[in-house]
Amino acid sequence: MKFVLGIDGGGTSCRAALATADGAVVGRAKSGAANIRTDLTGARSNIVDAARQAFIAAGQDPDLIPQTPAILGLAGANVGTYRQQLEAILPFSTSRVETDAEIALEGAVGSGDGAMAILGTGTAYMARKDGKSRAIGGWGFEVGDQGSGARIGRDLLEQTLLAHDGVRLASPLTDSMMAVFRNNPEDVVEFTTNAKPGDFGGFAPKVFEHAQKGDIVANWILDKAVADVEASLGALDLAAGAPLCLLGGLAPLYAPRLSERYRALLKEPLDDALGGAVQMAARLFAGRVEAAR
Amino acid sequence: MKFVLGIDGGGTSCRAALATADGAVVGRAKSGAANIRTDLTGARSNIVDAARQAFIAAGQDPDLIPQTPAILGLAGANVGTYRQQLEAILPFSTSRVETDAEIALEGAVGSGDGAMAILGTGTAYMARKDGKSRAIGGWGFEVGDQGSGARIGRDLLEQTLLAHDGVRLASPLTDSMMAVFRNNPEDVVEFTTNAKPGDFGGFAPKVFEHAQKGDIVANWILDKAVADVEASLGALDLAAGAPLCLLGGLAPLYAPRLSERYRALLKEPLDDALGGAVQMAARLFAGRVEAAR
Repeated sequence: MKFVLGIDGGGTSCRAALATADGAVVGRAKSGAANIRTDLTGARSNIVDAARQAFIAAGQDPDLIPQTPAILGLAGANVGTYRQQLEAILPFSTSRVETDAEIALEGAVGSGDGAMAILGTGTAYMARKDGKSRAIGGWGFEVGDQGSGARIGRDLLEQTLLAHDGVRLASPLTDSMMAVFRNNPEDVVEFTTNAKPGDFGGFAPKVFEHAQKGDIVANWILDKAVADVEASLGALDLAAGAPLCLLGGLAPLYAPRLSERYRALLKEPLDDALGGAVQMAARLFAGRVEAAR
Repeated sequence: MKFVLGIDGGGTSCRAALATADGAVVGRAKSGAANIRTDLTGARSNIVDAARQAFIAAGQDPDLIPQTPAILGLAGANVGTYRQQLEAILPFSTSRVETDAEIALEGAVGSGDGAMAILGTGTAYMARKDGKSRAIGGWGFEVGDQGSGARIGRDLLEQTLLAHDGVRLASPLTDSMMAVFRNNPEDVVEFTTNAKPGDFGGFAPKVFEHAQKGDIVANWILDKAVADVEASLGALDLAAGAPLCLLGGLAPLYAPRLSERYRALLKEPLDDALGGAVQMAARLFAGRVEAAR
């Protein structure tokens, strides 16, 4: 019996799934970070470790690794030559490194036409049309990630300070935010000095919650965020009738706010990113695995 | 002959001016940082050093310091109890610590009604009406300082990446920015990871320059920035007919873009912040200096 490997690696952990040639997962495992931009050899080591553990979890011999092909979806694989460097030092029979977005799209919509929007602490988009993928966004909190939780939280703090100064409207939401910071604008500024995107993003659900109650500032922030998300969807050049999946923690909050023309395309994702790597491996390597029998 | 001292201290340096009781400056000097939030005793030491050097520059005996009253304008004086702590340990006959904005306003418009907008890497506003001062803004780059050079530069990088992705319009300005970053959006993101407000602000003059040539993205960014500046001016509750001074590096670039109702109020500043501290000292302490003669 021969296998394929799917790997989903990022800055905090690396997951591996061992599957039969037809894509049925038989073992899963998880290891440490696989950040190919900051630590290529450390990433290799955690990738191999996750793969070995997936063989063991399946009750199979890890010594089969050199005979097993793998699809790896890794954050940062679109930058520089990290992809080629890593492929050259991996122990699998064939190693193909894709971006994390590519395997997430495969997981969400399968191998045909379709698109996804990742709406979480950050935002990123990818669409596949006639077999060609195109990614946009994902440029990070400081000058990108429009519509992300981090940007929504940052906008909220900005509007809260403007309301404090009497420059923009106050609302129950901005009043409650000032209370969080002991009604001291300096405390707000202090918070932002060391806040990471996830810290700003922590306030985003509060904005959605207040918007539903009719809060004017919350709705102003979200109208802008929805317009930003739709501007990116508009630039994706979606294939007619192809599925659109919303992923990430804010997906269920955004779905009802999108315009009808996008809501009509929404589909639940078929699988997650790791599942996407497995399915891509089964699709691309099945022939070769058969041949090796 | 008796004197008054004006002190203008901030995060990079501390300036002192020694003046006669009627406000005529007779000696100036400069020393190191006077950051009362991060190093109160270091700030005291540099303040005293600048004062001593100003006496020496005027050919006067620094031992007169304990008989000389001082107005100090210091960044951060509006936060917590730093002001009171510092006043308690200064060697002057009387020490009055004001914010840097307060002495800048005194320098710009004198002791009557009037307002100023500081439009530089950051933005801040202050108005005096019927003898009462009110400051707004100045909350820093991350969630404040709307219309500042830093925010304009950040907006430019954001629009440049959106244009690269085809989400928003490209223009000669965004094309030239992409060229600065070797047409690699990752280079833009890399820059923003470690960029300080001044680094973002470095791009602001380029935006004004392209706007004048009709660049659509530059004008979009500046229309938003002008609207933000005017929203803050609107919240200042300016006294009818009182002067409005624009200070900071972007002041001459903003002046022609303001609405007529604000342009009509514009006046050249009478003096700088150090001059404001001196004039305030002469105004407030002249009586006491006379009495001591």
